[in-house]
Amino acid sequence: MQNVTEDNITDTFLNYFGKDTDPRVLEIMSSLARHLHDFARETRITHAEWQQGLEFLRATGRITTPKRDEFVLLSDVLGLSSLVDMMHSPAVGTSSSVLGPFHVSNPPAHDLGSDLRGEFDGEVVLVKGRILDVDNKPVSGATIDIWQTAPNGMYSSQDPDQDDLNFHAKFTTDKDGNYSFTTVKPVPYTVPTDGPVGDILKATGRHPWRPSHLHYIVEAEGFRSLVTEVFPSDDEYLNHDTVFGVRDDLIMHYLPQPAGSFPEAGFELSGSVKEPWLLVEFDIVLVAASSI
Amino acid sequence: MQNVTEDNITDTFLNYFGKDTDPRVLEIMSSLARHLHDFARETRITHAEWQQGLEFLRATGRITTPKRDEFVLLSDVLGLSSLVDMMHSPAVGTSSSVLGPFHVSNPPAHDLGSDLRGEFDGEVVLVKGRILDVDNKPVSGATIDIWQTAPNGMYSSQDPDQDDLNFHAKFTTDKDGNYSFTTVKPVPYTVPTDGPVGDILKATGRHPWRPSHLHYIVEAEGFRSLVTEVFPSDDEYLNHDTVFGVRDDLIMHYLPQPAGSFPEAGFELSGSVKEPWLLVEFDIVLVAASSI
Ligand SMILES: [Fe+2]
Ligand SMILES: [Fe+2]
Repeated sequence: MQNVTEDNITDTFLNYFGKDTDPRVLEIMSSLARHLHDFARETRITHAEWQQGLEFLRATGRITTPKRDEFVLLSDVLGLSSLVDMMHSPAVGTSSSVLGPFHVSNPPAHDLGSDLRGEFDGEVVLVKGRILDVDNKPVSGATIDIWQTAPNGMYSSQDPDQDDLNFHAKFTTDKDGNYSFTTVKPVPYTVPTDGPVGDILKATGRHPWRPSHLHYIVEAEGFRSLVTEVFPSDDEYLNHDTVFGVRDDLIMHYLPQPAGSFPEAGFELSGSVKEPWLLVEFDIVLVAASSI
Repeated sequence: MQNVTEDNITDTFLNYFGKDTDPRVLEIMSSLARHLHDFARETRITHAEWQQGLEFLRATGRITTPKRDEFVLLSDVLGLSSLVDMMHSPAVGTSSSVLGPFHVSNPPAHDLGSDLRGEFDGEVVLVKGRILDVDNKPVSGATIDIWQTAPNGMYSSQDPDQDDLNFHAKFTTDKDGNYSFTTVKPVPYTVPTDGPVGDILKATGRHPWRPSHLHYIVEAEGFRSLVTEVFPSDDEYLNHDTVFGVRDDLIMHYLPQPAGSFPEAGFELSGSVKEPWLLVEFDIVLVAASSI
């Protein structure tokens, strides 16, 4: 193929693959080139716009560090991260949602019923539920890794004033699959907007907010690991999560409870909560690993 | 749109644009998201593959410096650079081709007929031609910026042993639109393969070679600037340029000339070339700036 043209360049590209190319590599790179070329032809990308795109990628590279990954953020706001996630979620069981960049490995183990509020004030939220299999049988010994923002909108790793492990905890379900803890309500927060991805949000008239959420990773032997989030039903950004993470079955009601009704036993805060409080019940259904 | 799904995420993305988004930004970002999502759905990209893609972009960012732009190289080997180029080439006139990374600004001005071989030996190549408009009228006073590899396959900026301006020169056409110079035959060379783009070439069984070529930028008042390349007709990589730069009208014959036939006057080398030599004639047709 000597005379490469606008119309034959995609076929030319497809003809360049070596005979021994791994079939999956061939599939992915073929699809990538077809979509990239179609995108360019469809939009008639100019030299100046192409240069701008290259400068965007270079700037994304420059701002990326092991602690701040602007490429992941790009994938997030373009919906790619959520799409990859959804494509590989099983049709049954609780929906998965994006992991995000704030998970820590080896969070501290806590007893069931522990309180995570630390030095922070705020209305007590009691979160409880059961880990179940698809037949509604409890999964005992499941670990639940939880993390969330402090009331100031920051994860501990973003906030020099917070202890590194604030609002990071791991629980293990009891023999009936129960888990529970107390905390404060997480708050909405923005993805970082001071880099090239922030410029995209500005240029497209998009806000950078995520609805408030509580992150979960649930793991149990014999089950597929679940990375997910729980969103309160009254969050103002529920219909417009800038990283596309909301799924219907992950929206939970924070039910107001009257003063004096906090459980008298079984919780670290039992006996000390006199004010009204909020109750969130979130049961999680795991899918057997063998069903994948 | 609360419950984002694999099927509605693209529409969700398209609904997120602000009302005041610039129409061109909206067009480009919509097309980008549609193609990105379709690519992911079509290939069922897994989490592991997505991670690999992100690491590829991070690595591309890490190796990129002002002197080495791995993102441009990625665009080149994916055919995007050539495609953008071809989409904006006028239908008439000499074809354009990729600029590449080795152009220098302000190359030294040389008289017509000068020799560029410097300290390098090798068969003398006489390159000559005319700069014409689409009505076949000569363009006088056009500047022709020329650059090429030395016989060792390196551009001067890649080679610590070469003077920075070796094989970089600028000529101005005479009243009949003529240009001419002597040089040596450029040789095929490889794009850099020690970075992530090299890994793509390896994984897809592609060689990194470009057919040998002489770069041209031709500029004249009232005409559209032309960035192009000339390829010898006998190059072994002509049918498989790894950056897709070859166009039929840019392939020129290097015609062998007998010993003793070199012009006796008008060239820096006149009187000193006793051996056989090669003649390349390359006329270039410029398109009026007003016709764009
Ligand atoms: Fe989060
Ligand atoms: Fe070149």
